[in-house]
Amino acid sequence: MKIDRISLYDLFAEYGSLIDASRYDEWLGLFAGECRYRIVPRENFDRGLPAALIFCDSRAVLEDRIRALREANKYNIHTDRHLIGLPRLNDEGLAEAPFAVYQTDQEGETRLFATGLYRDRLEAVGKHLKFRDKLILLDTFAIPSLLATPL
Amino acid sequence: MKIDRISLYDLFAEYGSLIDASRYDEWLGLFAGECRYRIVPRENFDRGLPAALIFCDSRAVLEDRIRALREANKYNIHTDRHLIGLPRLNDEGLAEAPFAVYQTDQEGETRLFATGLYRDRLEAVGKHLKFRDKLILLDTFAIPSLLATPL
Amino acid sequence: MKIDRISLYDLFAEYGSLIDASRYDEWLGLFAGECRYRIVPRENFDRGLPAALIFCDSRAVLEDRIRALREANKYNIHTDRHLIGLPRLNDEGLAEAPFAVYQTDQEGETRLFATGLYRDRLEAVGKHLKFRDKLILLDTFAIPSLLATPL
Repeated sequence: MKIDRISLYDLFAEYGSLIDASRYDEWLGLFAGECRYRIVPRENFDRGLPAALIFCDSRAVLEDRIRALREANKYNIHTDRHLIGLPRLNDEGLAEAPFAVYQTDQEGETRLFATGLYRDRLEAVGKHLKFRDKLILLDTFAIPSLLATPL
Repeated sequence: MKIDRISLYDLFAEYGSLIDASRYDEWLGLFAGECRYRIVPRENFDRGLPAALIFCDSRAVLEDRIRALREANKYNIHTDRHLIGLPRLNDEGLAEAPFAVYQTDQEGETRLFATGLYRDRLEAVGKHLKFRDKLILLDTFAIPSLLATPL
Repeated sequence: MKIDRISLYDLFAEYGSLIDASRYDEWLGLFAGECRYRIVPRENFDRGLPAALIFCDSRAVLEDRIRALREANKYNIHTDRHLIGLPRLNDEGLAEAPFAVYQTDQEGETRLFATGLYRDRLEAVGKHLKFRDKLILLDTFAIPSLLATPL
């Protein structure tokens, strides 16, 4: 699959923007009909260990997860801000981009929440690029608090 | 207005770069002749509240503000570093980009200062894109210290 | 030299990505045969002071430095994450991009390590862009700990 760069940049920009705006239905629309979404500590991945923090192996499971996160969000009220670096295509044809996520709590304090790397298999659906297999490699195994929003 | 992507990326890259280099006159040159510059807490914006932290509704007011900031800077000496994510065009034709601003003080300590989202109306002036209406949605209402440089 | 934007973006994306993945040999491959690599506190640079934190004035010295860093890394075990902003070409034809580097330690804690600006002279080597003279302007003179990986 030939991937147009501007479409690639737009896909990642929209990905972060839609989470930060809590527009989760549109965010789900960035995934292919058949899709996976995994959050794995980088250390596990580098060692070939399969243990994931979150593992949604179908779109239905991902949709369910998002519903659950919305519930959790009522008790851990915060806003997110994604900073996503320039995406590139790696040697395996996967789209990679580093990210940092900041969270702001109800007192107005903003903190670094997590950093990591997206390593994603994409799929062309009509004119649009979609996530077929989203792998989120987290730099830490120690998540500072409840994962109340998607990364 | 059709917006070329590379020009869009360059505009945002220059925007951050010129602030960080304290080149405020050239930074003002990125704005259209008639322009607005607003900093609004995201919470206020989401609730439809108009209260802004900074509201410059003309170029003259913005120029004046910059002069004042330069004075303030003599008493709050620091350097800025803007990290701006990939800009995208939203459904309303506005240019959006997330940002994080870091400040380094005279002791050499670097801290996260603020995160937020630019949501800007652009204008083509000759061959150049300029900011017609710059809206800075800050993730927090609690600015940690004096706003001594533009965001 | 005319610089294609996507190639420019890819060069910086690979630069950060290869450090973060500890793929230092491939990272060295992003530099031209004759090259320089310097880390200079921004304050020194702005005042015209030549003092560098790290100064590799040839490829051999850079390769040597990388070997030494790998040794040091055995005693300061951490992982890096580079967030690099949109690169642009400045008035002098140099490629500039702001960056933030985060480090995660063995306890799983992620911290901001450094922010700064890349200001690089590039060279076309065949179809590839390479770093001819990499200047890393660090926002702080106070590096929080041993520089155990390249910035």
